[in-house]
Amino acid sequence: MVFSYDQLYQFTFSVFKSIGCSDEHARTATTGLIAADIRGIDSHGVARLTGYVRLWEAGRVNATPDIRIVHETPSTAVVDGDAGLGLVVAPFAMQVAIDKAKNVGTGWVSVRNTNHFGIAGHHAMMALEHDMIGMAMTNASALVAPTFSIERMLGTNPIAVAIPADKQPAFVADFATTTAANGKLEILQRKNADTPLGWVQDKEGKESTDANILKKQGALLPLGSDREHGSHKGYALGSIVDIFSAVLSGASYGPWAPPFPAYVPMPENMPGKGLGHFFGAMRVDAFRPADEFKQHMDNWIQRFRSAKPAEGHEKVLIPGDPEREMETIRMKEGIPLVESVVADLKEVADKFSLKF
Amino acid sequence: MVFSYDQLYQFTFSVFKSIGCSDEHARTATTGLIAADIRGIDSHGVARLTGYVRLWEAGRVNATPDIRIVHETPSTAVVDGDAGLGLVVAPFAMQVAIDKAKNVGTGWVSVRNTNHFGIAGHHAMMALEHDMIGMAMTNASALVAPTFSIERMLGTNPIAVAIPADKQPAFVADFATTTAANGKLEILQRKNADTPLGWVQDKEGKESTDANILKKQGALLPLGSDREHGSHKGYALGSIVDIFSAVLSGASYGPWAPPFPAYVPMPENMPGKGLGHFFGAMRVDAFRPADEFKQHMDNWIQRFRSAKPAEGHEKVLIPGDPEREMETIRMKEGIPLVESVVADLKEVADKFSLKF
Repeated sequence: MVFSYDQLYQFTFSVFKSIGCSDEHARTATTGLIAADIRGIDSHGVARLTGYVRLWEAGRVNATPDIRIVHETPSTAVVDGDAGLGLVVAPFAMQVAIDKAKNVGTGWVSVRNTNHFGIAGHHAMMALEHDMIGMAMTNASALVAPTFSIERMLGTNPIAVAIPADKQPAFVADFATTTAANGKLEILQRKNADTPLGWVQDKEGKESTDANILKKQGALLPLGSDREHGSHKGYALGSIVDIFSAVLSGASYGPWAPPFPAYVPMPENMPGKGLGHFFGAMRVDAFRPADEFKQHMDNWIQRFRSAKPAEGHEKVLIPGDPEREMETIRMKEGIPLVESVVADLKEVADKFSLKF
Repeated sequence: MVFSYDQLYQFTFSVFKSIGCSDEHARTATTGLIAADIRGIDSHGVARLTGYVRLWEAGRVNATPDIRIVHETPSTAVVDGDAGLGLVVAPFAMQVAIDKAKNVGTGWVSVRNTNHFGIAGHHAMMALEHDMIGMAMTNASALVAPTFSIERMLGTNPIAVAIPADKQPAFVADFATTTAANGKLEILQRKNADTPLGWVQDKEGKESTDANILKKQGALLPLGSDREHGSHKGYALGSIVDIFSAVLSGASYGPWAPPFPAYVPMPENMPGKGLGHFFGAMRVDAFRPADEFKQHMDNWIQRFRSAKPAEGHEKVLIPGDPEREMETIRMKEGIPLVESVVADLKEVADKFSLKF
């Protein structure tokens, strides 16, 4: 079934209102969540709305958080999210980073006691209208085995970097530090299809193509897949995200990161509070005049877009191109949702006596 | 043949003196260069000394640079390296980042008009003794084809991140944003061996195992190897390094990055000056008390080191472990150099009437 942006927005907004969010928080959370659907990251949009509701029911999400700065310097801050929705905490923290960048050139904010924040790119992109480079990352439920290990120690820990250009659209990279994100497995599960080799391993660390392997104690693999192809680099990247997001802020890190599914018990002896995020904003004119920078970004983008394509490929893409193209299509033609997601949303509607 | 640290240090120092470096610059350059040999990154150490000398002979390296800050804010700076050795320019710029972090919590420095800086990790590690997180990256000669392309557009563009711990050794990640670094190909060339699939492609973009393929218009592949295994993520990472290092600073970027081999002509219509680097320093106590942070880093490191290993593997490694272990061995047993490197160094010795 296909829904318009406005339909999904109204429904999602009313669900966030139903769990007790203020109008302002419900608007912020809705915009952040649906940004995923619009940009084609179907795994992180309204498909997760029931998951957020269940976390609220389990008492793990606070719908009326007192989000605040607990420590700061001119260019840094630690924010405590008071167990709020990451979708609400993240824009607050990113705004702190932007404000600090206005004052001293850059701003860097590590966040504790928060929850999943939707797609990282949405938050990083907040910097663009200020002629700033934006960065966003987060740790997440442990599903990834480090190189040489069979134990799940890290989340898919995404990194997003948004860089403004002049006439060209912005450069927006947003990627999990694994070979494949968990959402890709979910899509294959629905189709009853196998994964390519190099995405996952089984519980003994052997190669596997089973899209359901995470339910059998298997693990996702770090970007690079195996040692020979650089998985130690993906493992290092995921670790850096974990440390910047959670060790710097006082959140729970590594295998102790709180799980997203509300039915999974919380880890014992957690070394910090909730999930962690990390945000950065750099004013480009803290380095060189903004116009000059953005004109060179145009030149960079045009040069890379015109790189000679390999046979069978029409053109070389710039990070952010596919999501932006999808956004144009979906704002016009609507957002398709698979049956299982529609059924989930109907259940949520019934729970709160809403229409869907 | 095996050489002691002191032997290589004295010789390298006298070579840098011979091209006209001051005592201080020669010491800095020597320490940086040999850090690679000591840590086992043989491709980036004295094996490159003749390359640096040739760049000086070609007039591309200035042995007496006036390195200076050309723009700054409280947390940022742009440094012009005056075409100096990257080995000298990089520690200058990293020190600027550290000084800014002392004042406002973090410091971020983009560098133009510079040259290759040896191993990124050496510069990032300067932050550790100040209880800071250090970061270093650089762009480099274009050898890497973006996903879907057959054109070499990016360098192997490494990223290093050094994070202090308390009783545990520091976390030090230092990696090329390609599946395999160029140095790995050089090692296979000497052995007349093939590469694994997924490291390189031929000039038509087809898969290849030819370790000499870069001499035949082939290209290195971004981390992830192919689209299905996330090469678009490695391509994005390499691009971010290029933009932070060169577009922010006014250096030459992408396919216009100056080539390391002095016999390769400079690209036409270069959009900036020389190579670019980017450095960062974050005071950990700009986020939480340093002792607290470092104790949690100890806990993080111990937990990851004790992750269940896969069959056939003794233990899980922490980024920086292999290089630190190598350093212990080589400081004791010396640094082995292959014959071709020894021959190269003898030639340099003759050129400057030095003993080797």
